[in-house]
Amino acid sequence: MISKEDIKHLEKIFPFWLDISQNDKAKIILSSRILSLKKNAIFFNSHDLDGLLFLKSGKLRFFLSHLEARELPLYYLNNMEVEFFENFTDNSISMILDIAFIVEKNSEILLIPYSVLNLFRSKYSIMEKFLHNLTREKFSKSLLSLQNILLKPLKERLLNFLYSLNKTEISLTHEEIAKNLGSSREVISRNLKILEKENFLKINRKKIIILDRGEVL
Amino acid sequence: MISKEDIKHLEKIFPFWLDISQNDKAKIILSSRILSLKKNAIFFNSHDLDGLLFLKSGKLRFFLSHLEARELPLYYLNNMEVEFFENFTDNSISMILDIAFIVEKNSEILLIPYSVLNLFRSKYSIMEKFLHNLTREKFSKSLLSLQNILLKPLKERLLNFLYSLNKTEISLTHEEIAKNLGSSREVISRNLKILEKENFLKINRKKIIILDRGEVL
Repeated sequence: MISKEDIKHLEKIFPFWLDISQNDKAKIILSSRILSLKKNAIFFNSHDLDGLLFLKSGKLRFFLSHLEARELPLYYLNNMEVEFFENFTDNSISMILDIAFIVEKNSEILLIPYSVLNLFRSKYSIMEKFLHNLTREKFSKSLLSLQNILLKPLKERLLNFLYSLNKTEISLTHEEIAKNLGSSREVISRNLKILEKENFLKINRKKIIILDRGEVL
Repeated sequence: MISKEDIKHLEKIFPFWLDISQNDKAKIILSSRILSLKKNAIFFNSHDLDGLLFLKSGKLRFFLSHLEARELPLYYLNNMEVEFFENFTDNSISMILDIAFIVEKNSEILLIPYSVLNLFRSKYSIMEKFLHNLTREKFSKSLLSLQNILLKPLKERLLNFLYSLNKTEISLTHEEIAKNLGSSREVISRNLKILEKENFLKINRKKIIILDRGEVL
């Protein structure tokens, strides 16, 4: 059960909220939950959190997790965005696809459990279409991210990432930056030094300072 | 319009064929087409071929195409398999996702155009669910492929690819192998030489001969 204010969120999440019967709306409202997620917590698939996630506040970073290798970053979930989080392991292909997320900032989510969504997918084709669109979006964003990792030089991706933070002083560790870019601490440190030599930034003991290159850029 | 034999294929493609009204079945049958695709032809999205593709014979290789960089292989479509081919370019993200395919062997396909599918997606939630499942499958296969390219050593992927052809004499060029693995001719040639030194294969002027390593493996 959720608050009146959160019911308003449901109207925003489902563009077709008005087309659902009163009875079904009540079922969705009764089974929805608000959850607080602590910074740095990691969630994997086939878990309590499968379903529709609406991010009320905070930030989540989704990635491909792999037992033996580095993580591959896929996309972020920001304020007021919706994620259809479900198990992508496919038994017809023998391999496992492990999409997980880490909580980047303390977050609050509204969760509509997978089991509840499933009740209404065959009843409302518009619900199925809505979920299908979320899957397509997830697909596009993830493929774009891996395409970038494969085709764009790390130095360029690193600079884009630092600029995207919109800060002049960045206090992330090299390890944290590496996780965001699917790289390793060593490689990030090396590339930061190159960018420092090229006057894009300055590296302090605990901070990275972005230099204003004025008209140089 | 398609033949009686091909209508049988439609029954196989749509697991819910019996649940569609006679009228709608007729519309699907009348708008479906059989097309012959010549080896080495390449098809991009937002094209005549958008829709549901059922491969009657032949083989198609899907890949991420990129104007300025190498192609990234995603998955194959084999005999009797179905592909939901649609435009993945997303205007909400500023970038373009270009999924294309090349005809690896002369192929015959049964095509149900996108516009016809669209007519029935809101009417039959089971149709939307069917398309959603195809999108999920495509998603899993594509992410797995890029995950492999990023995390598995090329030598290992090269050997797996050669074994997957199930032949002792392989007459593909190094360039063709490179396309299948998202690599370059030079890198493939170098890795083939390493595998030759390690007694996995022999390189002839025009062929690669797979060596039987008996109990060595």
